[in-house]
Amino acid sequence: MTLTKNETTCRLRRLRAWMAEEGLDGLIVPRADMHQSEVTAPHDDCLAYVSAFTGSAGLALILADKALLFVDGRYQVQARGEVDLTTFELRHLRDQPIEQWLGQAARPGWRIGIDGMKVTLALHDRLEAALAGRGASLTPLSGDPFDRIWDGRPPPPLGNIRAMPAEAAGESSRDKRQRIAHRLRETGTDWLIETQPDNIAWLLNVRGSDVAMNPVPHSFLALGADGAVEWFVDSRKLGNASASLEIADVTLVPPHGFLDRVAGLCADKIAHIDAAFAPQALRAQVEARGGTIHAETSPITLAKAVKTPAELEGYRRCHIEDGAAVTDFLAWTAVQATARQRTAIPLTELEAEAQLLAFRQQRPGFLEPSFRTISAAGANAAMCHYAAKPTTNAAIDGRAPYLVDSGAQYLTATTDLTRTLMLGEASEEMRVAYTAVLKGFLSLLLLRFPVGTQGHQIDAFARRALWEAGLDYDHGTGHGVGHNLLLHEYPHRLDKKPNLYGLEPGNIMTIEPGYYKEGAFGMRIENQVEVVADGAGFCRFSSLTLTPIDLAMAMLDQLSEDEVRQLDAYHQRVRSELEALVQPETRSFLFEQTRPIADRLRSI
Amino acid sequence: MTLTKNETTCRLRRLRAWMAEEGLDGLIVPRADMHQSEVTAPHDDCLAYVSAFTGSAGLALILADKALLFVDGRYQVQARGEVDLTTFELRHLRDQPIEQWLGQAARPGWRIGIDGMKVTLALHDRLEAALAGRGASLTPLSGDPFDRIWDGRPPPPLGNIRAMPAEAAGESSRDKRQRIAHRLRETGTDWLIETQPDNIAWLLNVRGSDVAMNPVPHSFLALGADGAVEWFVDSRKLGNASASLEIADVTLVPPHGFLDRVAGLCADKIAHIDAAFAPQALRAQVEARGGTIHAETSPITLAKAVKTPAELEGYRRCHIEDGAAVTDFLAWTAVQATARQRTAIPLTELEAEAQLLAFRQQRPGFLEPSFRTISAAGANAAMCHYAAKPTTNAAIDGRAPYLVDSGAQYLTATTDLTRTLMLGEASEEMRVAYTAVLKGFLSLLLLRFPVGTQGHQIDAFARRALWEAGLDYDHGTGHGVGHNLLLHEYPHRLDKKPNLYGLEPGNIMTIEPGYYKEGAFGMRIENQVEVVADGAGFCRFSSLTLTPIDLAMAMLDQLSEDEVRQLDAYHQRVRSELEALVQPETRSFLFEQTRPIADRLRSI
Repeated sequence: MTLTKNETTCRLRRLRAWMAEEGLDGLIVPRADMHQSEVTAPHDDCLAYVSAFTGSAGLALILADKALLFVDGRYQVQARGEVDLTTFELRHLRDQPIEQWLGQAARPGWRIGIDGMKVTLALHDRLEAALAGRGASLTPLSGDPFDRIWDGRPPPPLGNIRAMPAEAAGESSRDKRQRIAHRLRETGTDWLIETQPDNIAWLLNVRGSDVAMNPVPHSFLALGADGAVEWFVDSRKLGNASASLEIADVTLVPPHGFLDRVAGLCADKIAHIDAAFAPQALRAQVEARGGTIHAETSPITLAKAVKTPAELEGYRRCHIEDGAAVTDFLAWTAVQATARQRTAIPLTELEAEAQLLAFRQQRPGFLEPSFRTISAAGANAAMCHYAAKPTTNAAIDGRAPYLVDSGAQYLTATTDLTRTLMLGEASEEMRVAYTAVLKGFLSLLLLRFPVGTQGHQIDAFARRALWEAGLDYDHGTGHGVGHNLLLHEYPHRLDKKPNLYGLEPGNIMTIEPGYYKEGAFGMRIENQVEVVADGAGFCRFSSLTLTPIDLAMAMLDQLSEDEVRQLDAYHQRVRSELEALVQPETRSFLFEQTRPIADRLRSI
Repeated sequence: MTLTKNETTCRLRRLRAWMAEEGLDGLIVPRADMHQSEVTAPHDDCLAYVSAFTGSAGLALILADKALLFVDGRYQVQARGEVDLTTFELRHLRDQPIEQWLGQAARPGWRIGIDGMKVTLALHDRLEAALAGRGASLTPLSGDPFDRIWDGRPPPPLGNIRAMPAEAAGESSRDKRQRIAHRLRETGTDWLIETQPDNIAWLLNVRGSDVAMNPVPHSFLALGADGAVEWFVDSRKLGNASASLEIADVTLVPPHGFLDRVAGLCADKIAHIDAAFAPQALRAQVEARGGTIHAETSPITLAKAVKTPAELEGYRRCHIEDGAAVTDFLAWTAVQATARQRTAIPLTELEAEAQLLAFRQQRPGFLEPSFRTISAAGANAAMCHYAAKPTTNAAIDGRAPYLVDSGAQYLTATTDLTRTLMLGEASEEMRVAYTAVLKGFLSLLLLRFPVGTQGHQIDAFARRALWEAGLDYDHGTGHGVGHNLLLHEYPHRLDKKPNLYGLEPGNIMTIEPGYYKEGAFGMRIENQVEVVADGAGFCRFSSLTLTPIDLAMAMLDQLSEDEVRQLDAYHQRVRSELEALVQPETRSFLFEQTRPIADRLRSI
């Protein structure tokens, strides 16, 4: 959605006219929606509307005579391509944050507007402090300017809501509400006010369709310490599904009344809101009515992180189906790419992406992808957030590794995996890096660790072999994954950054070390795993993903006995689980890819 | 210093009379001194005076009709032995913190006194919030009650101050001051107010003797952004050393004027104070005069963490001397313990400790121990903070491992190392645990890691082998060590807990995994190391400690090739560095202990 300079100018002029009417000297336009969603609905793409920047994080500051766009390191290049740089001054979201700019340049008396439903507590406090230091102020908006200035703005989504059956969830909504309400009473809290769509979906055993690939309904919810629930949801989304939902004792309230109603409920009471996801307007309204805010991780986030036996069974079943689809795809890709290389119609990233979807669509329980597939050949694979376009659509052939990071929503799980295929001769540099990535990946699968271990303690096991080779990767090693919910589920992460959640059996994660050489190639190996008990007080990761790991680039003689044993056992399991499920023409590929290492070493 | 019930009662009665005079409903007596020192002077042992508790962390809350003592998990047993439990209610410092008690039990209108020079910003804020929630208040003291009620209170220490020659420090005090002042200007700060004695000693190139084994002078210091220094120190400590100190352009101020003087200097200015170590009274006084507080890690703490080439040379030299002394000691211990076991006069922990000191006293540059030696046999070694006493003084013989954790102050370094000797037949359990500890220790010595890696990322490498065996240890893996300064030097740590300091070449650390079986045995292997560059952007740990690692309990066939190579290379270095320095009768021990692993395996 690249805008012409004229369009940008016209949109900014209307926005500034509105600011003048409201007596505002500036307006902050965040990329966020009211739920701090990673993926937003078109209705909420206000930052893209005004700036043309379409990345998943950033914000703009619009002043009367100046406009600034703040985006992080991942998006500097993309922003330069999308945004009119004669209108917007581009700045680094983290190294040159907006509060730093305001703290230096804001003029006394300035009133800077912001939508209090789209700003987190932490960002609000930083902005307020920076402005206060300059004698300026942050002003909550009284209405949404984009309703006024955005001609043809898409309406808020009205995606259908369906049930997640209690048998598949492993716990009734009523039991979940009682469990969380009990926790509220233990912590002396009167109300939990929830704004995270996946937490609400989990609590009510529902799924939604407001945003593609993210099966959560946009809504808000208040849960009382007595178990009472008020659900702030547009009832049109329920359609005729209501009877199948566990909401007989839930009070439905139109979402536009959320803040007022909640402020009334929490007047002079103690309200728990999520420290990272709750909007500032919620805190402000509750405190204005004498309520006390308890801002910490939502108890639903913590409860949801430990999957029930029924949920775990759902993950395991879906991963067999997904493994078959991806293995069919990899086999097909190997054949097509090899046969068509150096022809006029080589296999391309976009064609492969479409074929992967086609294979998945054949699997029972499949709903939709869980994110836009990263189908990336050659230098494109060095960009961690690459999405193929006709203008970048590279050939998949034997000259460079082909990386495919994809996942799917199934009725009872969300999947996410990455494989990197090498169909030609790999360079020494590629072989060294891929072997190190593989060793890092296996290191976490081999690790036994105490229950309660935190992600930052073990992230480096996946990096050690890369470090030894003088290499590293600039992203986290793993994240939680929802149960037919969001691709990135909190609170746990495997990352260099501190993460204080203590891992325990029932957690679902990814393990995904990689290596990227800018302008040249990229590689990543990713399995989804569950945390399983392993003796008193200890646990291990157990792979959910069932898809062969390509060893064309691996220096097999560099693997330790433990690594060989682990890899052989995994491939043996992949073969036996998938053998009967894959297409007949996939079987030779499956057998070749899952051969024991000793066999391979003999045949070199 | 166990008090009789009568003494406790009498001291509390006097304290309570003073509280009544001051109109206080309660008094908080922290264990801390004004510098948040780990080791305090007798003058500052107010908590021990009033409660008889002598541990290194804790605080008491004295009310008119009640007294509570808060100590952490390490000290529950010790406190029960020392404190009159009919007078003091014992509580857990972390699980049942004082702010929780006050938040539930404080009565409206209560005034709780505290010495603002002995409370950190964080503790102060937690106490104040808890009391405010109950309509009560925290009241800074107008004087030191212990001056009034403590008959025969030791005076503040007046230990001599000496120079740390600029050649040994590698940088003149003037250059250091200019460097830190430059940093203040960069961050827009007018004054650095320093209360950490080791930071002041580093900045001025001085050492002190106010507290045994901790060669720092108690004092305060203000450094201006222009490089000007005011040093709040009792000038009697300078004696006739003044001429040898680099303080010609330093203004000396009596310490009792510290708060008033600093508040004047910082009026309407920006003052940097340390977020973790600075006292609340400092913040309050500066803010009362319109100054702005910038509370973060002191820039001196950060500068001091990267040792100069001259300092590193000092560490390396001292470690050769210290290695010779400790190796002589271990050889002597092996002979004595074996010869005297099952006799009427076995070797004991206290005798060994004395002999270790005697060996160190023969080494050039030795000043004093850097902490009370942990000389621990059998079950005593399972207590991480054990100090031998006549009543606990166990025999060192072949029945259980003997653990010795000790260190020394030398003119140009501080040392810290641990060895565990097994002079008899080890049990399978001991062998499994010791092998895992050894593997964890070697794992960090084998690790290559990026410059900027944080301690929490790599702590678990030292635990992995223990985890695999279902074991772990409940302490950090490593800490900074001063240059003839404090044993525990900040900011870096190797720990499960997040530590945001990025390691770089020039840092000094310990690596000290262990295993402890309560009531049975304990083992630990600890080397002091420096962080050294290892290719562009990467580094490694290099051992400073030079003392053989006893392998009597190690299952050598369980070691990997890398581990064997690392251990052999270390022992080869130990042998060649120490061969000419140890006593003639130590040489056979040194040779036996440093034999290559392959030799040992052949002779089994």
